[in-house]
Amino acid sequence: MEPAISYRLIKTEKHTGARLGEITTPHGTFKTPMFMPVGTNASVKGISPEQLDEMGSQIILANTYHLWLQPGSGLVKEAGGLHRFMNWKKGILTDSGGFQVWSLAKDRQISEEGVHFRNPVNGDKLFLSPEKAIHIENDLGPDIMMSLDECPPFFESYDYIKKSVERTSRWAERGLEAHRNPATQGIFGIVQGAGYEDLRRQSATDLVSMDFPGYSIGGLSVGESKAEMNHVLEFTTPMLPTDKPRYLMGVGSPDALIDGVIRGIDMFDCVLPTRIARKGTCMTSHGRLVVKNAAYEHDFNPIDDQCQCYTCRNYSRAYIRHLFKADEAFGRTLTSYHNLYFLNHLMAEVRQAIMDDNLPDFRERVFESYGYNQKGAKNF
Amino acid sequence: MEPAISYRLIKTEKHTGARLGEITTPHGTFKTPMFMPVGTNASVKGISPEQLDEMGSQIILANTYHLWLQPGSGLVKEAGGLHRFMNWKKGILTDSGGFQVWSLAKDRQISEEGVHFRNPVNGDKLFLSPEKAIHIENDLGPDIMMSLDECPPFFESYDYIKKSVERTSRWAERGLEAHRNPATQGIFGIVQGAGYEDLRRQSATDLVSMDFPGYSIGGLSVGESKAEMNHVLEFTTPMLPTDKPRYLMGVGSPDALIDGVIRGIDMFDCVLPTRIARKGTCMTSHGRLVVKNAAYEHDFNPIDDQCQCYTCRNYSRAYIRHLFKADEAFGRTLTSYHNLYFLNHLMAEVRQAIMDDNLPDFRERVFESYGYNQKGAKNF
Repeated sequence: MEPAISYRLIKTEKHTGARLGEITTPHGTFKTPMFMPVGTNASVKGISPEQLDEMGSQIILANTYHLWLQPGSGLVKEAGGLHRFMNWKKGILTDSGGFQVWSLAKDRQISEEGVHFRNPVNGDKLFLSPEKAIHIENDLGPDIMMSLDECPPFFESYDYIKKSVERTSRWAERGLEAHRNPATQGIFGIVQGAGYEDLRRQSATDLVSMDFPGYSIGGLSVGESKAEMNHVLEFTTPMLPTDKPRYLMGVGSPDALIDGVIRGIDMFDCVLPTRIARKGTCMTSHGRLVVKNAAYEHDFNPIDDQCQCYTCRNYSRAYIRHLFKADEAFGRTLTSYHNLYFLNHLMAEVRQAIMDDNLPDFRERVFESYGYNQKGAKNF
Repeated sequence: MEPAISYRLIKTEKHTGARLGEITTPHGTFKTPMFMPVGTNASVKGISPEQLDEMGSQIILANTYHLWLQPGSGLVKEAGGLHRFMNWKKGILTDSGGFQVWSLAKDRQISEEGVHFRNPVNGDKLFLSPEKAIHIENDLGPDIMMSLDECPPFFESYDYIKKSVERTSRWAERGLEAHRNPATQGIFGIVQGAGYEDLRRQSATDLVSMDFPGYSIGGLSVGESKAEMNHVLEFTTPMLPTDKPRYLMGVGSPDALIDGVIRGIDMFDCVLPTRIARKGTCMTSHGRLVVKNAAYEHDFNPIDDQCQCYTCRNYSRAYIRHLFKADEAFGRTLTSYHNLYFLNHLMAEVRQAIMDDNLPDFRERVFESYGYNQKGAKNF
């Protein structure tokens, strides 16, 4: 049987670990490195599927935890799966719900079997196991699923992280065995281990032995510095096979994307571009721009004079600022569109820089133009 | 000089006063009777200009009062006018601000000169006169402007309404004289007079003598019954010239549209379709449908099985219900799109029924199918 998900390495950049590649899914083939917009509730907030397509999005992320609770994975299955339910014809990836159980749920009790917790909205008792997570994802029907992981805080003790990594490996094995649709859905294993190199190695070795079609790197972008994150990536990606994609979860600022690519990451997702957009903050080729600011009241330029997106071709800062002042939903749509296009475009430029073997120069130019210091200031 | 706005009567329906016509504006020609979506703050809530165009909208309404206060008409002028500011290439009509001064403003004091009032948001003292309203509208730059009117409650005393009508006529004259862009913008006079036939006649006679390129009928759909509204229309439209368009302000329920057309109305506007849509209520060919209801949880049919709109071609009731439960903006966009398309489509059918001289039959079929009683129950 053909695997549902396959990866082809096209080339590695001369000066860095950056890889140009191609991922094939049951809903299309796309080039990597790339960024996935987040559609938590089976909708990228304020953006239509046609707009996602028009801006060049190839695969989006939906959240298992949220969809399990509302509308329920059984209902999505009844609808014919997420693609039909939400009218999106290209790729979909779902997370495992693990991160949300750790960040949103209440009264969490973890055991070998799984996690008992309470729904923070209505107090309902809930249980998620590696088998249950995969069965929910089988019902949702994305192209790529994540196996259930424990996502402990970055600065937990070595002993805790070691036990957690070992359990996550056993859970990955159980998830693989529970998988019902191997012909149409692929599972990625999630490498954990916080900042401990030997635990990251243990996690990677365990998961690689299970031969997943791809590997996620979890437990990063959760409060540690960007230097710490880059350090972990530096020693973790070489532990992973070169013929499988590598996905860094929850990372979406331009500097972190470029620095992740340099360390061999192929896929990223994050709510950052759409979340800040809804508050009026835009990513631009000259750095961060808060379009609500009074400075833009009479500014009839586009958000970014270098950008060719729908928003920048048709609307001024003054108009978008007005929409935010008037609390008009269309303003949030326009900034969300721009930020997502901006990251898609950035990743296209990154792929070109890999082709041209000049990624370090490209990084320097971008960091200078965006107003980052060379360590990657947190300016988004 | 060619007038900015012209009307051509194509035919009158055999059994009723319904007229098929055509209005030409500097931003396009369109058939009447027709419905205008409302874009209060220079945005039809949650809908892009491309979507408005795609659903067949020909002219939209924007609110002078709101745009005067935010972002300010001077800024819109600086932007090159409303069309450029909001990226809408077809027609725009602005109201005079009169209705909002009467419904939203505080501490209103009316004199011959104009209206003094307070901004309900920040307490600022404001003043609107017939000249000022037209100059604001000249700055906004719509194709069709309204002259400032007083919009008293329907059930005010005869004496009050008589004085008000006379003042509104004097204001209309002053507005016409203040108009700065007659080559590119047309003013409509607003016929007032509440439910008093002789005052409606006085108002119409005054305004018709000023030779406006079109006439609005104001002071309706403000609390009186539909039977009362229809009664007023019945005696008012014959007072207006047949070679000018007639616009009934603030009316948007399917029954009221049809009954207005039957009485000789050519143009309508209302926030109703988008306002109810944002709460999850849809207009359908089988009547009102509240898509948030539990009954639609597992319903994979479109909102309206007779509808060919973007929403109905691509999304199920179950998906849209889920989006409302999850408070996703895209749900409000989908229902708003549907309701606006629904009214555009209804008006296209009305125009066909006028062509075919079978509007009474059409009305009966529609009222039965929508579940109206023949008096036009308020089911939206």
